[in-house]
Parts: sequence; structure tokens; C-alpha cells
Amino acid sequence: MRYGFLGPETTFTHQALLQALEALPEESTPVREMVPFSSVATAATDLLAGDIDALMAPIENSVEGGVSGTLDVLAATDSITIVAEQTVQITFVLAAREATPLEELTTVSSHPHAQAQVQGWLRQNVPGAHVAAASSTAAAARDLAEADPAEVLGRAAVCSPLAAEHFGLTVLAEGIEDYDGAITRFVLVTREGRIPARTGADKTTVVIQLPHNRSGALLEALEILASNGVNLSRIESRPVGDFLGRYSFSLDLEGHIEDRRVAAALRSLHRLCPVVHYLGSYPRVDGQRAEVREDFADDAYDEAHDWFDRLEAMVTPGDPTTAR
Amino acid sequence: MRYGFLGPETTFTHQALLQALEALPEESTPVREMVPFSSVATAATDLLAGDIDALMAPIENSVEGGVSGTLDVLAATDSITIVAEQTVQITFVLAAREATPLEELTTVSSHPHAQAQVQGWLRQNVPGAHVAAASSTAAAARDLAEADPAEVLGRAAVCSPLAAEHFGLTVLAEGIEDYDGAITRFVLVTREGRIPARTGADKTTVVIQLPHNRSGALLEALEILASNGVNLSRIESRPVGDFLGRYSFSLDLEGHIEDRRVAAALRSLHRLCPVVHYLGSYPRVDGQRAEVREDFADDAYDEAHDWFDRLEAMVTPGDPTTAR
Amino acid sequence: MRYGFLGPETTFTHQALLQALEALPEESTPVREMVPFSSVATAATDLLAGDIDALMAPIENSVEGGVSGTLDVLAATDSITIVAEQTVQITFVLAAREATPLEELTTVSSHPHAQAQVQGWLRQNVPGAHVAAASSTAAAARDLAEADPAEVLGRAAVCSPLAAEHFGLTVLAEGIEDYDGAITRFVLVTREGRIPARTGADKTTVVIQLPHNRSGALLEALEILASNGVNLSRIESRPVGDFLGRYSFSLDLEGHIEDRRVAAALRSLHRLCPVVHYLGSYPRVDGQRAEVREDFADDAYDEAHDWFDRLEAMVTPGDPTTAR
Amino acid sequence: MRYGFLGPETTFTHQALLQALEALPEESTPVREMVPFSSVATAATDLLAGDIDALMAPIENSVEGGVSGTLDVLAATDSITIVAEQTVQITFVLAAREATPLEELTTVSSHPHAQAQVQGWLRQNVPGAHVAAASSTAAAARDLAEADPAEVLGRAAVCSPLAAEHFGLTVLAEGIEDYDGAITRFVLVTREGRIPARTGADKTTVVIQLPHNRSGALLEALEILASNGVNLSRIESRPVGDFLGRYSFSLDLEGHIEDRRVAAALRSLHRLCPVVHYLGSYPRVDGQRAEVREDFADDAYDEAHDWFDRLEAMVTPGDPTTAR
Repeated sequence: MRYGFLGPETTFTHQALLQALEALPEESTPVREMVPFSSVATAATDLLAGDIDALMAPIENSVEGGVSGTLDVLAATDSITIVAEQTVQITFVLAAREATPLEELTTVSSHPHAQAQVQGWLRQNVPGAHVAAASSTAAAARDLAEADPAEVLGRAAVCSPLAAEHFGLTVLAEGIEDYDGAITRFVLVTREGRIPARTGADKTTVVIQLPHNRSGALLEALEILASNGVNLSRIESRPVGDFLGRYSFSLDLEGHIEDRRVAAALRSLHRLCPVVHYLGSYPRVDGQRAEVREDFADDAYDEAHDWFDRLEAMVTPGDPTTAR
Repeated sequence: MRYGFLGPETTFTHQALLQALEALPEESTPVREMVPFSSVATAATDLLAGDIDALMAPIENSVEGGVSGTLDVLAATDSITIVAEQTVQITFVLAAREATPLEELTTVSSHPHAQAQVQGWLRQNVPGAHVAAASSTAAAARDLAEADPAEVLGRAAVCSPLAAEHFGLTVLAEGIEDYDGAITRFVLVTREGRIPARTGADKTTVVIQLPHNRSGALLEALEILASNGVNLSRIESRPVGDFLGRYSFSLDLEGHIEDRRVAAALRSLHRLCPVVHYLGSYPRVDGQRAEVREDFADDAYDEAHDWFDRLEAMVTPGDPTTAR
Repeated sequence: MRYGFLGPETTFTHQALLQALEALPEESTPVREMVPFSSVATAATDLLAGDIDALMAPIENSVEGGVSGTLDVLAATDSITIVAEQTVQITFVLAAREATPLEELTTVSSHPHAQAQVQGWLRQNVPGAHVAAASSTAAAARDLAEADPAEVLGRAAVCSPLAAEHFGLTVLAEGIEDYDGAITRFVLVTREGRIPARTGADKTTVVIQLPHNRSGALLEALEILASNGVNLSRIESRPVGDFLGRYSFSLDLEGHIEDRRVAAALRSLHRLCPVVHYLGSYPRVDGQRAEVREDFADDAYDEAHDWFDRLEAMVTPGDPTTAR
Repeated sequence: MRYGFLGPETTFTHQALLQALEALPEESTPVREMVPFSSVATAATDLLAGDIDALMAPIENSVEGGVSGTLDVLAATDSITIVAEQTVQITFVLAAREATPLEELTTVSSHPHAQAQVQGWLRQNVPGAHVAAASSTAAAARDLAEADPAEVLGRAAVCSPLAAEHFGLTVLAEGIEDYDGAITRFVLVTREGRIPARTGADKTTVVIQLPHNRSGALLEALEILASNGVNLSRIESRPVGDFLGRYSFSLDLEGHIEDRRVAAALRSLHRLCPVVHYLGSYPRVDGQRAEVREDFADDAYDEAHDWFDRLEAMVTPGDPTTAR
């Protein structure tokens, strides 16, 4: 099994993939290779071509960008299915080649996204240092690790804990992000179109396009979900591209397509929307089961079907006038 | 075939039954007998016992009362099905034994309900006459027809055109109701539980009881109808009887249970409501076909089902962890 | 102060009035006279004419009828306001002139509505007795009380506890109704148009007519209530009378018109509906305060108003092109 | 008056600004200076500091990027107001220093976004040429215009018609975009907080944040708009940044805050949402007036207010018990 990920090595996506593989029973995928890609699009091409078997990509609120890239790639093909999700707590360390007092630092390098998240800490703790841009936090760490020893004096990098460890750097400070709690969500996608079985704590991801001649269609779509007791854990608008004011929406629904309420909601969305692109049903990484009101339970749907089938069996075939 | 109706003879219900039988192809029910009943409840008992085969009863806005009586009888048994509807324009005549100038009338008799509908006309045109109550408009006409000739001088009755004709009275004035346009709707019910086939211009009648622990349940029920494109042509609340604030609702939906949108709405109502009592699907007497938005057409429902079935076929059976 | 009620004396409406007067501080209405009426309509005429000052009438689920009568009278005039409500637990006693073993009873008289509610008990406990109809439960009790002593042997009446007490009868059995829990709700109406101040536990009664050219208008009306957090404790449909399928709805809303959420809902209903007939805001008899979500509290409405007023103050008067 | 725009010169934003100034009456802003900025954020800083008076920026579906940049800048400050919008049809030309047959072209330079939109045309018409990246379409044109004449042989640029004209290039082909109809929308913002007067054909832009403890809050927000007859012409989700699954939504509403229906909707959103950030009401560039249902017209709101005020005047002040 070859797993692609949005690289370079030691990105948070890399870490998400490591987490996912750890969670798998070892015997299920005895040989595992991890392949970094520079973009989700090129990785997806290799996935479709069979060069890799699965791909980990950020989908939501990533500090390394890539969210809309991932959404667009997922929306563009029918042959890719999300089979798992992972979340990674985003945290940064300040790392150098050797233990160095903070006041001796003269240059701190990092990716601008990461800098934005630690700038308060840097201003407070390393006020005199110059902040230099790198192409990624991994690159900042690697460059420092590979630099000529004569040139590393007073230099540090803002990077992930994984990067510091991977490149053998010394951590000067950890948890230096200004705001706690940033999390990035990642999805593991495969090409094969097999949907993981229901676990009871699942998510379903779809992309829908609304009919453009009907104001209020988004309201109708949300009512379809509400009237089947299906919660929305993510909604993201994406322009369709042909006219102003036309959007597709990427949605994460709580539940699996084998849940009757999700099935009913998806069928109704399919009637309303010119496009419903199903991207997968997969176990929630937090294992949290949806709380389902009694009338949205599988039983309620099944009993309603049985009741209706009995009614329908009484309909007279043929000419209605003689049926009276 | 024996047909019961809410009598006595010459009521508007009688007329509705005559209209319904006229509309039937003669050979379909060669022998037809019409049996008046003094109440819908007693007629329903005879219907269930097999003494009559069908029953015509007013259901909506009747001038002769009986609507809630009919609704309650329909709600109380599972073995009765509505198979047709009729509407009758409510109009009254002033009739006497012989042609009489209006100014010579001294007494006008009728049923209080009818009187209420012609009182303006009477005040205007027969201001001097005493208005006497009869037990029904039919009784007013019959009493006059059967009275001793010595006692009919100056007497007239307010009754239906059918009653005047049936009892051989002379019509002094017709269309004497103060407000045009009163219509009563009647339903023809049978015991057998056979549902007339879909004609494309149908109605479906149900009685639902809402969950009493959920404020907003009526809103949810109406949203179920709206989100399936099902119009409501009648809604009537009836107390359930056990607590204040608990109602059942008698609903006429536009469409037939073989319309996918009606089927979907009924199944959803069945999940929401502790009681959904199906009373029948039958051709509309006005033959008006429902205008159905594209996403509520049968095709849209069928295509959504096919699409979903293809998705569901991809779900891996068994252990979800190995399915990744 | 003269109080009318739907009589005769000892009806449940009479009892509701007694309860209401007991709840009043005695000094507030030093002289109190209670006047029975044979119908709500005639009492309302006297109320409007100034012959009485207030009127107690059943509005919901009454065993003595009168609900739709009351609703129609309330809907027909602008000059009547509901100022209070009462509920009465409906319960019946079997009463005779003297203590009599049940097996010696030969005739039990009552009003048909009451009989319907005790028929199971009678069949069980007085199987041999003939059941005779009276014009009201009060009349049944009074007739028995006033009958010649020679004729009361083996006779009993089904009546209210109040009637038995009032007419000096002996109670043979109490609580003989087949189903517990029947309650009738009554309203006290005045002609003056003064609305009781908000107590925090109030109800508001309105009658609305829906626009007849818009399917889904009832759904819109209920959404107006829901989107202002206003619960519905009673909804009753009444035909408007001009066409089939046109209804007015009599609604009890939880809250007072001085509650911002109720004010907002009423204003929106006024836009939607061709007719909104306000019938009064008054304290709930059960004293139960509405649970109000934070965004439906008065503060939330007031803050939204203040915020918007500040915005609106920034709008440039005059020619918009120069405003840029 | 100094107007900033997202530069460099000849961008589509520049063209939007030229269009906007053309539409203004000349005397209203006698001295006009146009200042290019490299980012919306830096321009906004200058706007707030008073260095420029207004700023044109792309907001929707731009080919030059910048949309989310603009949305985030607008959301981040209270002191900026949108006062106008412009749309520009996105179209590209192929331009060279001199008239050149297409088959002689060896290098075509442009910005990657623009290339993506013309790649089909280039493959078809200039299959042999190398495609080179420039930092913007304007830079591609300027570089070609300023290049040494000895080095321009076989070179062309993909750029806007405005850029070709501005830099004195020769247009070899126009309308070379693969898909017609791409339009970018721009907004003109000022710092002063004056809102243009209502024209009858207006838009209102707001950013809302939903309560995160309530699933279905987006549905409630959309119902608020629908129940006030306010159409949504744009909705765009933006992560709030603190937790996964929390979004703010940037909305364009049809109408002006002086339209009663918009006022009512905004007030209700203010109750529901922890944050409602008002960004401005301004004339629609297409001049299209909203079609407003009768019950959403100003009159309907005003009449409802008057009706309610008359009701409220009848409420008794003080102790409710004596008010009965």
C-alpha cells in the first residue's frame, strides 16, 4: 500500500497520515510507503492512475492552505472516495541547531501562515530577531538542519514538533502559538469507490449545486436535512464559476448512507439539486455517535415503509371509474 | 348495490348521491337502491354490518350540519374508505302548494340553518310573514305538501329545489339565499378498503394526531407536505378529547397515494405522528390536475431512488476498519 | 358588576364563574350579580348593550357544547375582549332525592353529552335502569328536586357536583365519568377593550384569516410564530363561509402583547393575513411562565432595535449618487 | 478625492474604478487621483489612515484572486462601508509589440490565473509556443512593452484589453477566453460610515456569525430572510478560525436598510447571531429593482405597526388583578 500526502515531509498532513496508519491493524496493510506530493491535484492524478493507493489531504481550516484545493479536487472526479478522517492539533515549536538563549536569536524563519499564528509570542519573547520567510515550515526546519555550522549562530525556525524531531533540531520553546485550539481536519481518500460500513458514528460528505432559478433553494436544502434529523457539521460555499451568485456547497452530514435518515435526505437533495456529488461515508475520528430523535431512527423509517406498502396494496389496478 | 345517505329524502346529501350515481356507467351497478339515514353514525353502523354498500355524507361546510359528525365517524373506524367526492351548490327556493303572490304569505317554515341563509331575502320580500321552524327543509316541504288543503292558504316553505320538485310544490321564487356561492362537499364511503386507481386529478384524505410533547409539531407536519410539493386543500382541527390542547387534524391532500410525492409525505407523517389514519384517495370532482414542480414529479423520486441504490451497493459489508 | 354566564344555574360555566369571582379581591367588585343566559350569542348582545359587565363562556372542549358558538361570537365583534380564563375539571355525580341502593334505580336522567361520558359506568353499575334525556344536567337535577315526592322513587340524575348541592340532592356516587381528566376551559370577556397588564404568565388569543390565493400560508403563519419563539397552545380551524377550503384559525399564543416576541409575531401575522382579530391578552390560570430562549427575550428585541437605529442614522438623506 | 485600487495599473480592478468614476457626475469630485495598491489589506490601512478616500476591490469570483482577502479585510473593521458596486466582464486579448502571425509566436506570457482561462484557445491556436508565467497580466504586458526591441520577436502576452491599450501593444486576437461570461464584481468602500440613500434597486452586505451551540442556526437565519421576503444574491462561508465547524457567512441581501423588510430581517438576525457586521447598503449596478410581494412592502410593515400601536395603547398599566 502506497499512501500519498501533501508534503513535504513533517507537514501536519504527514502527521495526520502517521496517526491514521497507527490506528490501522498492522496486518491489514503490511507494507506501507508514504509519498509526499507538492499539491493535492498532482497526488490525485497519481491516485487515479494507480501509482498510489490512498491520499491524505487537509480539508478544513488548515494552517498550510490546501483546503479549497482539496475541495476542488474532490469535486472534480467521481472516482475518489473519502474513507477516513483525521484531526491534528496545530501547535508550533521554536527550534535551533543547539540550545540557545532566546535573547541571542537574530533570525527566525518560517512560513508566513505559521508566522501569523505565532507573531504575538515572537514579539514578546524574541523582540529583536528578524523574521524571514521560508516556503514551508518544513523547509525552514530542513534548511536550518542542513546549513553550514558556521551560519547557524543566532538562527531558529518556527515549525511543527514533528519537523523539529525529524530534522534533529533542539526545541527552544513549544506551544508558542498565540491562540490555543487550532485544529486541522484531514481526509484519507481512495480511488476504488468502496464505502466503509456503518459504525454508528459516521460522517457523510457531499457537494451539492443548487438550482439557479430558485431563490430560497439553500433554505429548501437545509430544510430537507432538518426534516430528516440530519445535522450539518460543515458547510462551505464554492463558486461554480459560470455566473456570479452560483455556488456549490460542500457539506459534512452527521451519519452514514446506511442510516435511513441520511438516505432519505440524500434522495430528497437529489431531487432538488441539479448536482449531488457523493464523496463518501466514513467513521468519525472522535467516535461520537449522533443523537437521533425517535422519529428519525431507522425503525421509524422502516415502519413507515411497511405501513405504506400495506396501504398501497389496496389500490385497485385499472379503470378508476369502475373502482368506486 | 344499496346506497345510504344522510336523509330525509330531498336533502342536499340526497342530491349529491343522485349526482354521483348519474356519473357512474349504468351497467356498473345495475340495481341501485337509496336508503335515507337520520345520522351518519347509524348509517356507518349499517355499512360496516353489510346492510348497505356505500354511504354519501357531507364533510365540509354543510348547511345541514353533519360535518363534524362525518369526520368523527370516519376517524373512528379503520374499515371505511372514501372512494369519491361530490359538491352541491346550496340554493333555496320559496315554495307553496299553489302559485301565491308573496304579499299574501302569512307563514314561512324552514329549518333554522336554512332560515339563517335566507333571512335578508325574507325580510325584504315577505316582511309580514311569520317564520316557523321545521325539523328539516325537507320536513317543511313535506308537511306543506301533505297538509289539509284548508290549512295551506298563505303558507310557504324554504327548501331545496329537489324538495319542491319531489313533493310537488309550486316554486314562488328561486335562488333566495342572501349570499351566493355556498357549496357543500360530500364524500362517498365504502367499507371494503379498495382504493380507486390514480386518475391524475385526485385527493387523499387523512387524519393525523400530533405528538403532544413537541411544540411546533404542526409546523413540522406542514413542512413535510411543503417539502414534497403536496398542497393542502382542507385542514380541520378536532379535539382528541383527552387533554386540552391536543388536536387531531383532518387533511385533504392534493394527489393520490400512487403519486410518489404523496407517498413520501405520508411516510414522513407516519414517522412524526403517533396516529396517521388514512381515509382514502379518490378522483377530484372538479377534475383539476395538480401542478407539480419538476422536482416533485414521479420521475424525480424514481431517479433519486435509482441513484441512491447504486451508491448503497458500494458499501462494504462487515468490519469497517478493514474496509479502508 | 353584573356577570353573565352560559346557564342554566349549576352548569360548569356557572362553576367557572364562581371560581373566577373567588380569585378576585373582594373589595374590587363589591356588588356581584350572576345572570344565566341560554346562549353565548344572547349574552354577548346584552354585554354590548351594557346590560351586563362581563360574561363567562366555554371556549374549549366543553361537555356542554358551546365552544364553536363562543368562538363565532368572539370573532364577530371588535368590542369584546378576553380578560381572564378558568378551567374546570369535568366530573359527574349520580344523585337522588334520598339515599337509594343503586339496584333499586329504575330511571336515570341527564343531558345526552353527559350520558355519553358516563355510559360505561351506568352499564356496569345500574344496568337495569332506563336512561332518560333532559335538556341539561342542571334541568335533570332540578326536575328531580322539584318532582312530586310520590314520583321520585327509583329516579336519579347524572349532574355536576354543583347541581346536586344546589338542588339539595343526595349523592349516590361521584366521579362516575368513564374517562378521567376531561377539562373545560372558559374565558371571561368584557366589552370595554381594556387589556390586563402583563404578568409574565399570559396568553394571547387571536383569530386569523389566511390569504386564499397562497397555498402554504398556514405554514408561513406558523413559521412566523416559531421564528419569534411563540408557542401555540390552541389552534382551531373554523370555515370562513364563503368558499370551500377557506378557514379562519382561532389561536392561543403563549405570552402577552407586551412581550416583544408576541408583538413581533402579531405584526408579522398582520402583514401576512387579510384579517387578524385580536381577542385579548390575559393571565394564564395555571400561572405557568413561558420558557423563552435568549434570542426571544425582550432584551434581545430591544438591543436589536437600538443597534438598527444607530445604523439607520448613518443613511445619507437626498440624492444617492452624490452620497458616494 | 483619492481612489485606491488593487493594482497594478490596467488590472480589472482598475477598469472597475474607471467605470465607477465615469458614472459619477463630474462636478461631484472635481479632482480625482487613482492609486494602485499591491493588496487590499495595505490599501485598507491607508484608507483608515486618511491617505486615500475610497478603495475599489474585487469581492466575488475574481480572476485575479483577492476575493477572500477583500472579505476578510471588510470583516475586520467597523469603519469601512461599501457605497457602490461594479461588475466587469472578464475578457482577454493576445497582444504583441507588432502585428505578428500566430504561427510565428514562440513565447506567450501571462499570469497563471489568466492562462488557466485561455489554455484551450492557446493549445488550439498557438500550439507551438512556450507559456511563461508573469506576476500579473499587467506585468506581462508591461514587460513586453518595455523590452528591448531585439528581444520581442515571437513574444506575445495574454492580458486585459485595457492593459494592451495602456502599454501600446498590438492586439493579435481578442475574446480568447475558453468560457464566455466570467464576470468579476467589485465594491467601492469608504471609511466615513455614510450610507447611500435608498434608490429602490439596492443591495445590503452583512457578515454574520452563527451561534455555535445550535445546529440548524443557518436554517433559522435563512428563514428570517425568507419570512421577510428578502432574497440572497450571494452567500459565502468563511471559517471563524477558533474551532472546526464554525463559520461566518458573508451575505448580499436584495434591498436597502431603509426597506422595512430588510430592517426587520436585520433586526431578527441581530437577535439570532452573536455577530452581525453591517458592511453597507448601496445601489445595484444593474439597476434591477427587487420584486416585492405585497405583504413585504413598506406599507404592510407600517400598517402592522400602526395597528399594533393602537392595540398596545389599550393595555392597562399596573396591577393585572384589578384590571379584570
